[in-house]
Amino acid sequence: VQARPTIGVDVGGTKCLGVAADAEGRVLAEHRLATPDDGAGLIESIAAVVHELGRAVGDVAGVGVGVPGLVDGTGALRFTPNLPGIRELSVGALLGERFGDVPLHVDNDATCAGWAEATLGAAAGKRHVLLATLGTGIGGGLVADGRLLRGANGFAGEIGHIVVDPSGPPCPCGQRGCWERFASGSALARFADEVIGEDQTSRMLELAGGRRADLRGEHVTRAAAEGDPIALGLMDRFGWWLALGLANLANILDPECIVIGGGLIESGGVILEPTRRAFHELVEGAEHRPDIPIVAAALGERAGAIGAALLARPTGASPM
Amino acid sequence: VQARPTIGVDVGGTKCLGVAADAEGRVLAEHRLATPDDGAGLIESIAAVVHELGRAVGDVAGVGVGVPGLVDGTGALRFTPNLPGIRELSVGALLGERFGDVPLHVDNDATCAGWAEATLGAAAGKRHVLLATLGTGIGGGLVADGRLLRGANGFAGEIGHIVVDPSGPPCPCGQRGCWERFASGSALARFADEVIGEDQTSRMLELAGGRRADLRGEHVTRAAAEGDPIALGLMDRFGWWLALGLANLANILDPECIVIGGGLIESGGVILEPTRRAFHELVEGAEHRPDIPIVAAALGERAGAIGAALLARPTGASPM
Repeated sequence: VQARPTIGVDVGGTKCLGVAADAEGRVLAEHRLATPDDGAGLIESIAAVVHELGRAVGDVAGVGVGVPGLVDGTGALRFTPNLPGIRELSVGALLGERFGDVPLHVDNDATCAGWAEATLGAAAGKRHVLLATLGTGIGGGLVADGRLLRGANGFAGEIGHIVVDPSGPPCPCGQRGCWERFASGSALARFADEVIGEDQTSRMLELAGGRRADLRGEHVTRAAAEGDPIALGLMDRFGWWLALGLANLANILDPECIVIGGGLIESGGVILEPTRRAFHELVEGAEHRPDIPIVAAALGERAGAIGAALLARPTGASPM
Repeated sequence: VQARPTIGVDVGGTKCLGVAADAEGRVLAEHRLATPDDGAGLIESIAAVVHELGRAVGDVAGVGVGVPGLVDGTGALRFTPNLPGIRELSVGALLGERFGDVPLHVDNDATCAGWAEATLGAAAGKRHVLLATLGTGIGGGLVADGRLLRGANGFAGEIGHIVVDPSGPPCPCGQRGCWERFASGSALARFADEVIGEDQTSRMLELAGGRRADLRGEHVTRAAAEGDPIALGLMDRFGWWLALGLANLANILDPECIVIGGGLIESGGVILEPTRRAFHELVEGAEHRPDIPIVAAALGERAGAIGAALLARPTGASPM
């Protein structure tokens, strides 16, 4: 007898990406919708993704949902800096009404991605894993001694909001100089916007369709991968900031492996090379400790959805 | 039958503090020596403290030693920024030769202190605990889900070396702007030295015996406790930086309780009040999460030595 599939939905700053997956995390179907900017719309969109996937695969054994920010044990999204206007949203209760008796698991999005990468992705078999997803912000999924590190309320892993420069730019969370202001996809877009200035010949600008307002981090990594010297210079700066936060986290957590996820990592090499160089300079006692590999997520942008599907399995992927 | 006592020695930047303790962590004897500045001298001093305590209490069941920095599973001190000139010191092997068949456990000093505070100190009964010890540097002891968070190599908890201002002062670890440059005992002494300048009437200077070179953090906290307005102003600045790093760590780890240890905390209130105020402004989503109490270590400066003694018990205090 084949175990029934589960559905996982990953809510990002721009899209809700859902998959139906089997017990080994193999993707059977995928569906995505834009992320709405209000709570009621978000619940509708998640439900629509789930229903579409349910239609594709039939009977499911559970539904998992990953949302960014502080998610408590009841499945409530308490605070989420990168979905402005959404807070104190009872995701678990509101979705639960719609799914009848199908078990529902609501979790932090990067926690889901970290679990997927640590069990069947780039860090499969490793017991101490740090996952950082670079998107609108930076999410963190932490695995310590083979188990998810959740903290007292399930709020652990908010790594994007470690302050690394108190005089840095303001962050939607209310602080200044959070790490994600320097090392997320939106940070890279900001760096690019600054250096492009009035330069109409920029390759990065061309990739963004000529509109500075449409610049995204991916345009920079793509231009860098093509060899654009200005984009390559930005990657050095970006890699240094990325490495700074990773070194902070490595000093605290001592992982055996660091996995970088999120849309930006599709152009892996241009990000990872400068990051690895800078990390070696920044982590405490680099010459006196084993090297910590920094690798790209193996499950790509689907990591969060796959992890949500794994954590939704009734038999449990022993999440705690 | 009474279980035999164990001995614990905590190696700090200035002193080696040892205790003999019973199975409940009650202190039966105490001895201290200055911390020498070379590896051979350090081994001699630890051994001397252990022998003195052994003479006091007789047969012991084990010896635990806490040293600052990166301590691996073999008991080697790989790297320790605040004991200049000491690195790659095989503490376990060198001490083991001297103690015959008495079991020896070598660990990070703040890990020991964190274990003591989480099992029988200020966080007794709590399952998610962050301990920060403020001394020459800042040490970290992390307890997650009731177990010590050690990481892949036992190097977890190097919280003093999270960079919080990349343009900040140089740190002995090789970076700039590490948290311990702003929130340790030596940081507070530096702040005081800056504001005192040529002011010969400073109460802080008076407490330091009139010699700026002898200024320590404790002189500032003592002057602040007396009501000295300049010292009180420094405590606001110091508390803000202390809270900044604690908020970073709370965002990552989601502890239910934060314990502040180290010699500086003897004047608890003058540190804790400004720190609590700033922490509430700095932690992510303060209005949307349970309050995280910030409290003084209950075991005072002995926490590390008591923790080392507990971790040295053969039956084990389930350290992992």
